[in-house]
Amino acid sequence: MKLDINAANEKTLEIMKSGQAELVDIKPARDVIPGMTENTILHAGPPIDWSRMCGPMKGAVIGALIYEGRAKDETEAAELAASGEIEYSPCHHHNSVGPMAGIISPSMPVFVLKNKTYGNYAFCTLNEGLGKVLRYGAFSQDVIEKLKWMEKVLAPTLQSALTISGNIDIKGIIAQALHMGDECHNRNKAATSLFIREIAPSLVKVQEKTDVISDVLDFMNGNDHFFLNLSMPAGKAILTPASGIEGSTVVTAMSRNGTDFGIRVSGTGDKWFTAPAPKVEGLYFPGFTDDDANPDIGDSSITETTGYGGFAMAAAPAIVQFVGSTAGDALNFTKKMYEITVGENNSFTIPSLNFRGTPTGIDIRKVLELGILPQINTGIAHIKPGIGQVGAGLVNPPQKIFEDALITFAEDYNL
Amino acid sequence: MKLDINAANEKTLEIMKSGQAELVDIKPARDVIPGMTENTILHAGPPIDWSRMCGPMKGAVIGALIYEGRAKDETEAAELAASGEIEYSPCHHHNSVGPMAGIISPSMPVFVLKNKTYGNYAFCTLNEGLGKVLRYGAFSQDVIEKLKWMEKVLAPTLQSALTISGNIDIKGIIAQALHMGDECHNRNKAATSLFIREIAPSLVKVQEKTDVISDVLDFMNGNDHFFLNLSMPAGKAILTPASGIEGSTVVTAMSRNGTDFGIRVSGTGDKWFTAPAPKVEGLYFPGFTDDDANPDIGDSSITETTGYGGFAMAAAPAIVQFVGSTAGDALNFTKKMYEITVGENNSFTIPSLNFRGTPTGIDIRKVLELGILPQINTGIAHIKPGIGQVGAGLVNPPQKIFEDALITFAEDYNL
Repeated sequence: MKLDINAANEKTLEIMKSGQAELVDIKPARDVIPGMTENTILHAGPPIDWSRMCGPMKGAVIGALIYEGRAKDETEAAELAASGEIEYSPCHHHNSVGPMAGIISPSMPVFVLKNKTYGNYAFCTLNEGLGKVLRYGAFSQDVIEKLKWMEKVLAPTLQSALTISGNIDIKGIIAQALHMGDECHNRNKAATSLFIREIAPSLVKVQEKTDVISDVLDFMNGNDHFFLNLSMPAGKAILTPASGIEGSTVVTAMSRNGTDFGIRVSGTGDKWFTAPAPKVEGLYFPGFTDDDANPDIGDSSITETTGYGGFAMAAAPAIVQFVGSTAGDALNFTKKMYEITVGENNSFTIPSLNFRGTPTGIDIRKVLELGILPQINTGIAHIKPGIGQVGAGLVNPPQKIFEDALITFAEDYNL
Repeated sequence: MKLDINAANEKTLEIMKSGQAELVDIKPARDVIPGMTENTILHAGPPIDWSRMCGPMKGAVIGALIYEGRAKDETEAAELAASGEIEYSPCHHHNSVGPMAGIISPSMPVFVLKNKTYGNYAFCTLNEGLGKVLRYGAFSQDVIEKLKWMEKVLAPTLQSALTISGNIDIKGIIAQALHMGDECHNRNKAATSLFIREIAPSLVKVQEKTDVISDVLDFMNGNDHFFLNLSMPAGKAILTPASGIEGSTVVTAMSRNGTDFGIRVSGTGDKWFTAPAPKVEGLYFPGFTDDDANPDIGDSSITETTGYGGFAMAAAPAIVQFVGSTAGDALNFTKKMYEITVGENNSFTIPSLNFRGTPTGIDIRKVLELGILPQINTGIAHIKPGIGQVGAGLVNPPQKIFEDALITFAEDYNL
């Protein structure tokens, strides 16, 4: 039988469109993430070992080892990290995703999302907020203390609230937020607000001191990116069943470890196609320049892979203040993405395009035919460990990985 | 000295731009609204007596008299309402505004907003939610019970939270919401969310049963229009000091009582210019048609008068689903309003227009020169008392009131 790539791609798109993403639990990573051992550290992007890790990822690993009580300081942590004792593995190999360095260690609490259409799960840590945070490679005492508070207070309190509220429809919140100026990658202000509205009535019923409940609300209210760590696993939950579709040229992961940029394609299964991660074109915080910028890093481009984030920038004209661009560009980025995608997601619509669905399902054939690369917007980490975020901007994956993917696809299918 | 209308208008605009609007208290109307007596009932729009009131306004007056314990049923309330004992007065005459029928009776709790730049106050009831509600003329037992709960539970609980949180910057929330798909007249979803986020951490600290706190959060979460009753008095607080500016042709009130549409102009002070209220062009809820629609009603066009609402529709493309239109129209409505306004408000910016300020300060001269009428979006009430909302849509004021205003202006200033 002749391979029908278009039909395979349509099937992949249908799986993506029919996927769901509900927040069903919050648990320590060790208790829920498949394959997580006490020596496992998960990271963003395609596979990488300690020696090739970039500065911010090394910083985050150091922080995680201190946080886990495996090392008392940076020196000890760096020794342990390089010792061979730690098993590094991509989040993506464990149904997980992580922003920026994407480090997940066993004690970290994670959101548990379920795609109820297909029964699969996805996992992501809770967002730490802005400033000095582990995901950007910072590991000072205050960073570790905040992670401990998130483990001991934030996560169990939210978990108790979730038990009262029942599952929360994260896909539904993303859909609403796209009508409220978010694209749910670098702008999550509306989605964060909607999540707080949804959980607050249950949160106040949790048997805890009112100061604790108030702190939890304050923490979420103080961080417009809180929802990012729900938006990302929603994409992962939706994409997992879309992977491994015979003959499909649809991208199922775009991901960066700060050294390499990697993609996976549905029809070639779990193989990674990688090339050096590019620099991000963006706006820098005062006091920082291009020289401070680490190459592109993080699993957050799962959002673009699922059809929102940079692909839905037309829904979020205000984001141009953050990533450096114009409202017209935001509209054009989305319009361009229609050219390289299989179709539109009628669950995610864009008011300013008269409620057209977001461009969904990147087809590597179209990317190469038209020479149009997927548009990603993203944060920028400092190149050294221990510092943090220095800006935000726009980036495209290297063209080479799409070429490599298509060559492998052709070989796999004897084309 | 020659009258310099342009300078007067610029001065009016500057007062509007520099105005503030903070929520400072929540109190029963009788305790805070100037001139409120036990026999006073405030209503939307320009002055009107019982005999000329439209159906939904009569329904709301009947409901208010039952709610106040002044009448036991519709018949008794209608008798009292017509007896001459009740003093009807426009909200606008008492630094107040009310959506739709706009009825305020002495026991109703009101938001107290302060313009801290100029020291003046504005007042508005709390939003009841959708469905059968007093402001659309419904007065059944459940409507009255909800009003009692709002008086006894909602308002005092929110007031206690406000004591803990301190004043809340409503102008700031409007500015943020314009970047989140609201225009803050008929779309208040983002602003409602931001308000909940802002007050929730303090709300949980109120000494009250957790069930009550949870009910209050549920009530606000269940009503995306909750913020409308904060958006409106914010406009009133900003416009009050802009009134009575010598030689200014800027509109300081646009308001409808369901029978008449009225405007006030800064340079002619407190005079109303009125004409029959037009019908609204809109979308009807299932089972209703144009025949069920009351003419245009409510003080909510204070939002357009201040430079948001219909004037900021470009910021809220998703609203077209509610009022019946296209995203392109939403953009064009805003663009058109620049032609009839004095300037732009740099506090209220529109991302899709590259952060251009909203068109602000309607100049009656420009309205008449160009034949472009202000664009208002609004809800539609059933023409009969006791029913409620039947749809939403778009409306313009009658041209005649701008002509009358200009004639009076010319007379007042011997032009």
